[in-house]
Amino acid sequence: MSKLTHLDEQGHAHMVDVSEKAVTTREARAYAEILMLPETLEMIVSGGHKKGDVLAVARIAGIQAAKRTSDLIPLCHPLMLTKVSVELVPDVEKSAICISTLCRLSGQTGVEMEALTAASVAALTLYDMCKAVDKGMVISEVKLIEKKGGKSGHWKIEG
Amino acid sequence: MSKLTHLDEQGHAHMVDVSEKAVTTREARAYAEILMLPETLEMIVSGGHKKGDVLAVARIAGIQAAKRTSDLIPLCHPLMLTKVSVELVPDVEKSAICISTLCRLSGQTGVEMEALTAASVAALTLYDMCKAVDKGMVISEVKLIEKKGGKSGHWKIEG
Amino acid sequence: MSKLTHLDEQGHAHMVDVSEKAVTTREARAYAEILMLPETLEMIVSGGHKKGDVLAVARIAGIQAAKRTSDLIPLCHPLMLTKVSVELVPDVEKSAICISTLCRLSGQTGVEMEALTAASVAALTLYDMCKAVDKGMVISEVKLIEKKGGKSGHWKIEG
Amino acid sequence: MSKLTHLDEQGHAHMVDVSEKAVTTREARAYAEILMLPETLEMIVSGGHKKGDVLAVARIAGIQAAKRTSDLIPLCHPLMLTKVSVELVPDVEKSAICISTLCRLSGQTGVEMEALTAASVAALTLYDMCKAVDKGMVISEVKLIEKKGGKSGHWKIEG
Amino acid sequence: MSKLTHLDEQGHAHMVDVSEKAVTTREARAYAEILMLPETLEMIVSGGHKKGDVLAVARIAGIQAAKRTSDLIPLCHPLMLTKVSVELVPDVEKSAICISTLCRLSGQTGVEMEALTAASVAALTLYDMCKAVDKGMVISEVKLIEKKGGKSGHWKIEG
Amino acid sequence: MSKLTHLDEQGHAHMVDVSEKAVTTREARAYAEILMLPETLEMIVSGGHKKGDVLAVARIAGIQAAKRTSDLIPLCHPLMLTKVSVELVPDVEKSAICISTLCRLSGQTGVEMEALTAASVAALTLYDMCKAVDKGMVISEVKLIEKKGGKSGHWKIEG
Repeated sequence: MSKLTHLDEQGHAHMVDVSEKAVTTREARAYAEILMLPETLEMIVSGGHKKGDVLAVARIAGIQAAKRTSDLIPLCHPLMLTKVSVELVPDVEKSAICISTLCRLSGQTGVEMEALTAASVAALTLYDMCKAVDKGMVISEVKLIEKKGGKSGHWKIEG
Repeated sequence: MSKLTHLDEQGHAHMVDVSEKAVTTREARAYAEILMLPETLEMIVSGGHKKGDVLAVARIAGIQAAKRTSDLIPLCHPLMLTKVSVELVPDVEKSAICISTLCRLSGQTGVEMEALTAASVAALTLYDMCKAVDKGMVISEVKLIEKKGGKSGHWKIEG
Repeated sequence: MSKLTHLDEQGHAHMVDVSEKAVTTREARAYAEILMLPETLEMIVSGGHKKGDVLAVARIAGIQAAKRTSDLIPLCHPLMLTKVSVELVPDVEKSAICISTLCRLSGQTGVEMEALTAASVAALTLYDMCKAVDKGMVISEVKLIEKKGGKSGHWKIEG
Repeated sequence: MSKLTHLDEQGHAHMVDVSEKAVTTREARAYAEILMLPETLEMIVSGGHKKGDVLAVARIAGIQAAKRTSDLIPLCHPLMLTKVSVELVPDVEKSAICISTLCRLSGQTGVEMEALTAASVAALTLYDMCKAVDKGMVISEVKLIEKKGGKSGHWKIEG
Repeated sequence: MSKLTHLDEQGHAHMVDVSEKAVTTREARAYAEILMLPETLEMIVSGGHKKGDVLAVARIAGIQAAKRTSDLIPLCHPLMLTKVSVELVPDVEKSAICISTLCRLSGQTGVEMEALTAASVAALTLYDMCKAVDKGMVISEVKLIEKKGGKSGHWKIEG
Repeated sequence: MSKLTHLDEQGHAHMVDVSEKAVTTREARAYAEILMLPETLEMIVSGGHKKGDVLAVARIAGIQAAKRTSDLIPLCHPLMLTKVSVELVPDVEKSAICISTLCRLSGQTGVEMEALTAASVAALTLYDMCKAVDKGMVISEVKLIEKKGGKSGHWKIEG
């Protein structure tokens, strides 16, 4: 197993040099879910377009957060995303909203952090909008699903 | 169960009016954990102060994210935190880093979102620093632990 | 007519001292409209909730912009808004979307700039989402409608 | 007339994929004007360099806002502007300050929103600096003047 | 000599708790200077209002930086400045521009960092605008001059 | 000596056009030092890893500030850094912490401002963390050390 790339030989944090990495199309998919009371889920999904804003606000927050990733995560490189999407799907069985994100760019570094940040912030935004009725919601399973492009190539979550 | 406060009668998102709420001391504690391979955890905790930067970077990122919450979460009120702390504790049994955050202020609205955002971003920062060796890490159990102050009073997670 | 308060005696810009101003409830309402082709307006309003995201995105962008006003307008004071709302109403006769904003806080300085910034950014966001089909849209009538609180008292637009 | 590109088939907002678009030189010119009382205009333009800061502050605010466009407008792509200019010309006949902006870059997406945002924020900054003497100022005619580069080619406002 | 307040007993960084500190008027004055070639200074000061923008841009950049201090300095508390001024005075003898800043607020924590950040960023902005003609400029003597208010009381630089 | 490039013929600030400049690897090294009481320096360096956070926080703040340079310095171009490092070395003889920064990217404009901003903000962050024990610290010798790449070629500080 290789060493932690974000620390130099003295164990000091630095922003890794990617100057020599190839510019390739890179893509990442991430996931998060927020578990809630059945009544909370019902409030979000019922009422048709009237409640549409709840999911729309979370979607927008996720997209904007992807763009601010290098500002939030100290050692992330700034980069220029060429696509971001955030999909929110209610899952009545799990009593959860499931969040799937996709980020893409043509650049020198991967976009895993952008996809993960979008998923996390979309989930936090749902928490914010529903916390008056359900403080016990839990955000879970925030994880990378797939990654393409770059030297390390294709990676996909197991199972 | 009351309705979603962040939507008006037409179902449109707005920033809730807190002008008339009392200025009281408010406090929130949140939690998150990031599960990883035992080898990854070993890399973070071994080596004494040399690896100290990994946890320090995550701690700082969490503190700064708390301050940017109203910029990230669309309907959050801007507020002036008077205290933020982020504690990171390795848990060898779980093969995880456990993150506990505390936010406090004297103001008109609660700081739950600030505490949750700090925990999430600290976890994402750990993911970023270790992703070169372990892409399968999972952030989990992001939740509010306790909340004090304000009209809704004291709330504590069950169990 | 008094002098420009944002310049000192040498004509140099500064951020005006409001340390001694009273903390009172302050409120401002602003307006903007964006004129477009009838076909463009039709695309936004038709289709029921499916197109709902267009107005929701503009609403969120306006709310977030209000919170960032002191970052955008160099001599604005930072302040803590306690309420923001952005209302978007299609006007078929004018072939326009009409935007009305309201900002409120309890503080030492007024919130006119916050209300005007929210209206402007909501309008720009509509332009962005529709520009692929209608580059000739025009944002117009960006103005303060009403202002309450503070030493200068109540002000309302004429006519 | 094509459909709204910023919504997917379900009517959900997303950041459009520009990964496959060509990198070309792109340029946009925008315009805005702010109408004011003749006395207000007189205060800005008189006094020679002493009042120079009013126009300088608006110019700087416009340039900085252009750089923050993707942060303000939710579905805008981040991009790296290679030139921004903001020109402010007093027009005594109209009793207005006329604002012309130009943005340029070599990239995968156009810079219309950057030019329009620069013009809007320069106008809002003028409002801020003069509002103590003239609350009735109106920002008007915020529009795209010209656009070059990219697949949709050259576009110029009519008339 | 007391211990470093920004570290807890384990040596971990945290944002100090100021919840219990009194709200008082607090003020800080800071200073910085940028030394340059006599020809560079001559270019800035000559030409009357034509070159006025150089000092105006630095002034605005300093004011805006003061407002962003808590975003830049990880352990600074967010606060609401009620006054900022940045004064730039050419000193032909020293061949330098001397920068004096003043920040004020009524709050629970001091504004030393805001005054120092304003001075530093004003100096960096001057460097940026003149670097094409003089890369050897040096920013020096960035220091706190005076501090009033708060528990630690009045402090003034010696000599 | 050429004229100030950041002003147009009327002396108005603008963001210089770099559209036609070549994309080359560019690099800059900068320096800053912060002078303090010997006791203050002793507090930072003693205690081994327990005090490690002080230097780690300053390092992270410097890295993050480099990424925000175009947001802080009004006429700087946005750019995508591919490497940032910030090194902090205690110098007992000088009773100072010496800060050396390095920024690199492949782009159309130089990274001098990014390296200088990183050094300044790292120094300000040290000031913040130690100000409770030593308000008289002075940041000094903020300067460019070396610059490579671009049309103006290699530049190195004299002496």
